[in-house]
Parts: sequence; structure tokens; C-alpha cells
Amino acid sequence: MPTVRLTVSDGDAEVRARVLALDLADDVTENAGAAVVDADLVVLAVPVGAMGAVAAEIAGELSPGAVVSDVGSVKEKVLNALMAALPGVIVIPAHPVAGTEKSGPDAGFASLFTGRWCILTPPAEVEAWQTERLADFWRLLGAKVETMDAAHHDRVLAVTSHLPHLIAYSIVGTASDLETVTQGEVIKFSAGGFRDFTRIAASDPVMWRDVFLNNREAVLETLGRFTEDLTALQRAIRWGEGDTLEALFTRTREIRRGIIDEGQDIDTADFGRPH
Amino acid sequence: MPTVRLTVSDGDAEVRARVLALDLADDVTENAGAAVVDADLVVLAVPVGAMGAVAAEIAGELSPGAVVSDVGSVKEKVLNALMAALPGVIVIPAHPVAGTEKSGPDAGFASLFTGRWCILTPPAEVEAWQTERLADFWRLLGAKVETMDAAHHDRVLAVTSHLPHLIAYSIVGTASDLETVTQGEVIKFSAGGFRDFTRIAASDPVMWRDVFLNNREAVLETLGRFTEDLTALQRAIRWGEGDTLEALFTRTREIRRGIIDEGQDIDTADFGRPH
Ligand SMILES: NC(=O)c1ccc[n+]([C@@H]2O[C@H](COP(=O)([O-])OP(=O)(O)OC[C@H]3O[C@@H](n4cnc5c(N)ncnc54)[C@H](OP(=O)(O)O)[C@@H]3O)[C@@H](O)[C@H]2O)c1
Ligand SMILES: NC(=O)c1ccc[n+]([C@@H]2O[C@H](COP(=O)([O-])OP(=O)(O)OC[C@H]3O[C@@H](n4cnc5c(N)ncnc54)[C@H](OP(=O)(O)O)[C@@H]3O)[C@@H](O)[C@H]2O)c1
Repeated sequence: MPTVRLTVSDGDAEVRARVLALDLADDVTENAGAAVVDADLVVLAVPVGAMGAVAAEIAGELSPGAVVSDVGSVKEKVLNALMAALPGVIVIPAHPVAGTEKSGPDAGFASLFTGRWCILTPPAEVEAWQTERLADFWRLLGAKVETMDAAHHDRVLAVTSHLPHLIAYSIVGTASDLETVTQGEVIKFSAGGFRDFTRIAASDPVMWRDVFLNNREAVLETLGRFTEDLTALQRAIRWGEGDTLEALFTRTREIRRGIIDEGQDIDTADFGRPH
Repeated sequence: MPTVRLTVSDGDAEVRARVLALDLADDVTENAGAAVVDADLVVLAVPVGAMGAVAAEIAGELSPGAVVSDVGSVKEKVLNALMAALPGVIVIPAHPVAGTEKSGPDAGFASLFTGRWCILTPPAEVEAWQTERLADFWRLLGAKVETMDAAHHDRVLAVTSHLPHLIAYSIVGTASDLETVTQGEVIKFSAGGFRDFTRIAASDPVMWRDVFLNNREAVLETLGRFTEDLTALQRAIRWGEGDTLEALFTRTREIRRGIIDEGQDIDTADFGRPH
């Protein structure tokens, strides 16, 4: 493996101190521009709504031939923002579909990307070998790589990530606002299923605000489908249609089996939580 | 501790053989009536819609003074069914708020109830010492005990368990039915949040059909509140109201902190799933 030198940039002095204490990087800079001097690869890891501004900050310091990528959860708007801020630069957006509800320098760990997918959404003008080089970078981190169109990425992730987060945030909000059931009761009896939703509803508020603001169309479309299906289920409950309910509840087991077979979750009961 | 003798009854020969192989009981019977002869405490553990019929089956074999309880996820309809089938019998419904997405004799484990709440919903005519005796039984299994009115139980569990399951089943159904995103893509990129929902959507279809059929009013009411709140969120996304989104996403973190402080979930990232 070639020698790699890693520079991290963060505007917050406490975060920079933590990055150094955890030995996450060779160098740490306050200024984003200073961090990209001489870099072959620049990876932006900021909320998707901040990508354009950060790209503009580094534009003047990039070396010729440098590749600019990112890890944002939305791709079409980010691709457009990066291309607009960095004319003539090789831009290859990326999204590692991995992470937890925690953020900040202490939330990372070495095996975070192992066996997870990283999606690359190169624009048409990027040459295949450039994309392949970035793919190899992610493979070295343990990820599997898939390439697709940015707009398709946004439709896929609207289903597998954005809608689940929206629904989790929403149900947790609803549960804490009821008159007939106290918040204390919701907390005490959360092991009945509710606590599963609170994990992703504890994710970073700014990151998720930006996701919804920047993938509006796909999220609203998927949400429309979901509420249609939920309305049908509501009707089945109201009219006591047991067969409809049982048929859906049987069908949904298959997709979990697929996820376990594909290595994207474990088969241990209750996510292996200790009891 | 007094000597306890445990008899299990199940209509399925394979299940009975498994119960014996796992040494879960002293005796195993095919016939429910045979199992309750001389029993001090009878616990019905069948889908809530089957409680009345099983109670009728055992009615003639109960000893005088025997207490009949259950573990059903719905309480008002079950209480009514048991009281109707067992006139003159001491009926104290119970619901241990614990369990996983798995069922059958292999799904149990010794620490399942440790630190979890068990809710008792005794009717007015049951004497306090009788309820306390059942509470002690559950405490010996490691549970904490709370007593409440059956109707209130059903409203609380509609929020902390039934609505989460309904929504999980619904979103998993929606995700497997889209035209623009394949089921293979949903499975591959499920680590973005979706996979969390598939756990509870893999729960037993008959058990959950019966829950919704027997707690219809409370589920529909809570579902109404949820869809109202989700509609407001949808509107905030459509109109780009970032502050509304961020405020909700910040508020929802607190309830998770409460759940962790109360020992109902772990604070380890991603439920401690291996990466
Ligand atoms: N967390 C996940 O599970 C996950 C998974 C896949 C993709 N992503 C994507 O990864 C990106 C980063 O998320 P993360 O979880 O790594 O978050 P994080 O640990 O909280 O890091 C966010 C970084 O962005 C900086 N930042 C915040 N607002 C900024 C602004 N307006 N201008 C410039 N910098 C700003 C922060 O700087 P300060 O330290 O100064 O605040 C910090 O360095 C996001 O685009 C997110 O969508 C996250
Ligand atoms: N699983 C959980 O997480 C959980 C948590 C709290 C409460 N509960 C409640 O506990 C009860 C049992 O659930 P479980 O998870 O223990 O299910 P389980 O392991 O699948 O056991 C269900 C039992 O009910 C029997 N049964 C099914 N249909 C029946 C019918 N029509 N008439 C008579 N017996 C019937 C089954 O007999 P065969 O073996 O012959 O099929 C089996 O013995 C349910 O009321 C559920 O709401 C479950």
C-alpha cells in the first residue's frame, strides 16, 4: 500500500483536539482551504446543505487533478452544488450507506464500513478509471461499491433511509405529545417495539433537516405511497379484515430474510440486545 | 422457594416434543383441560383472539381457588372473554412487555423478563392480596410490576407497541411494492435505517392480526394522531420549513435518553449490532 497522509479540517477547536487525541489524522486544520493543499483526494463530510459553501471555500486551494468527493446522504443536489462551486474539477459524489445514530469524532470505528455498500454517483464527464480509483479507496475501507445515477440514488435512499427516519421522528414526536398516555408511560413500556424507533430518531437534527430539504421530491413521493398503504391498513383494521392483515404481516417477513441473507443485519433476536 | 411443578399444553406434537427436549416443563399435555387439573395458577399464552375459546376448554377442569391469568398483548377484550368463559373464577390478566420478533419454544430465554415491566389489569372484584401474589410471581421471573385498568393498558400499548408494529409492517410492505426501486436495492441499502423496521415486521402474523382486531379503537385513535403529525411534517418538507424540522428532530432525542436512563434500552450505537 502506498503511504497515505490524512489531513482533517474542522471549525470547532474542541473537535480538532479530540481528533488529535484519538489519533484520527496526521494533521488537523481549522481552515478547510489549508487542508486540501496538495491533496489527491478531498472528501467532504458536512451536512448536505453545507456542501456547496465548503466546496467554494476550498476551490482556490485544490491541486490540479485533485478528486473531490463527499459522503452526503443526498446526491443530486450535492452533485449540482459541487459542480457549480468547482468548475473544471473532477467531482465524484459518494455515499457510504453505513453509520449509527451517533456523530462526531468519537462515533467512528474501524469496522464501520465493513460489508456495507458505498454508492458512487459520478457525472457523465468523469472517466471510468477515476471512478474505479475511488471505488478502490472504499473497498480498502471494507465497503462494497455500486455506481448509479444521482437521481436514482436519491429515490432508493428515500425508501431505505429517509422515509424510515422521517417516520421514526414523527412517531416519537406523536408519542411524547399525547394527553391520555404520559411520557413516563411511553418510556417505561417502550420495550413493546417503540424503543426501536427512538434509535434513529436520536440522529443528528441538522444532518437530517438538510436531508429532507435536499431530497424533497423523492421523499414526498415515497411518503405519499406509504400513507396510501397505511390508509388501506387502517381501513382493514376498522372493518376487521383479518385476512388482509395476516397476508401483509406474512409477506413482510421475507424482506427481513433477504436482508439477513445479504449480510445487512444479524439474525439474532432483538438485534442481539442484552436482556 | 416452594416446590413448583410446571405443566405445558400445546396442540402441536412437534412443539410438545421440543418443549420436552428443551426441558421447559415437568409435564406436557396435548389437551389444555388436562394441563390445568390441580393447578394453582394457569397462564394462557395464545393469540389474544383465541383466549376465550381456550378458557372455555379448561373451564370444567379448574380447581376451586385457581387463578387464571394470561400474557396477551391486549387486555380489555381478553379480560371480557376470560370473565365470560370462566364465571366465578379469579381472573387476573397480565402482559409482560417483553419479547422478541421470534416465537415458539426456542424463542424463550432465562433473562427475557429481567428489568422489563409486567402490567396486571385485575377487575374490581379481585382482592388485592391475590393480585399481589401474581405480582410476586412475575417479580421472581425478574420483572417489575405495574397495575392499571385494562382500558388504559390498551391505550398505552397502542402507542408503545401496536402503532410501531403497524407502521413497521406498513413501511416494509410499501418498500417491497415500488416500481422505481427494486426489492434487491431495498435489501442492499437497508443499513440506512430501513432494516431497523424489518425486525418487528418479522413478528408472528397471527399474533399481530389478533392484536389489531382486538384493540381496534385505541389503535385507530393513535394512528389518527400519528397521521396528523406526519401530515404536518410533510407540509414542512414541502414548504422547506427547516426550523420546524430541526426543532422536532431535537426534541425526539430526549425521549430516547429517558428510555436509556430507565434501563429499557442500551446506549451502545446501533443497538450494539456487530459491524
Ligand atoms: N451519520 C451517519 O450515519 C451518516 C451516514 C452516511 C452519510 N452521512 C452524511 O455524512 C455527512 C456528515 O455527517 P456526520 O454523521 O459525519 O456528521 P458529524 O460527525 O456531526 O460531522 C459533521 C461535520 O460537518 C461540519 N459542519 C456542520 N455544519 C457545517 C456548516 N454549515 N459548514 C461547514 N461545516 C459544517 C461539522 O463541523 P463542527 O465540528 O465545527 O460542527 C463537522 O465537522 C452528512 O452529509 C451526512 O448526510 C452520515
Ligand atoms: N412474542 C412477544 O413478543 C409477546 C410479548 C408479549 C405478549 N405476547 C402475547 O403472548 C401470547 C403468545 O404469544 P407467543 O409469542 O408466546 O406465541 P407463540 O410462541 O407462537 O405461541 C403461541 C401459542 O398459541 C397456540 N395457539 C395458536 N393459535 C391457537 C388457537 N387458535 N387456539 C389455541 N391455541 C392456539 C400455539 O399452539 P401451536 O403450537 O399448536 O400452534 C402456541 O402454543 C399472545 O397473546 C401475544 O399477544 C407476545
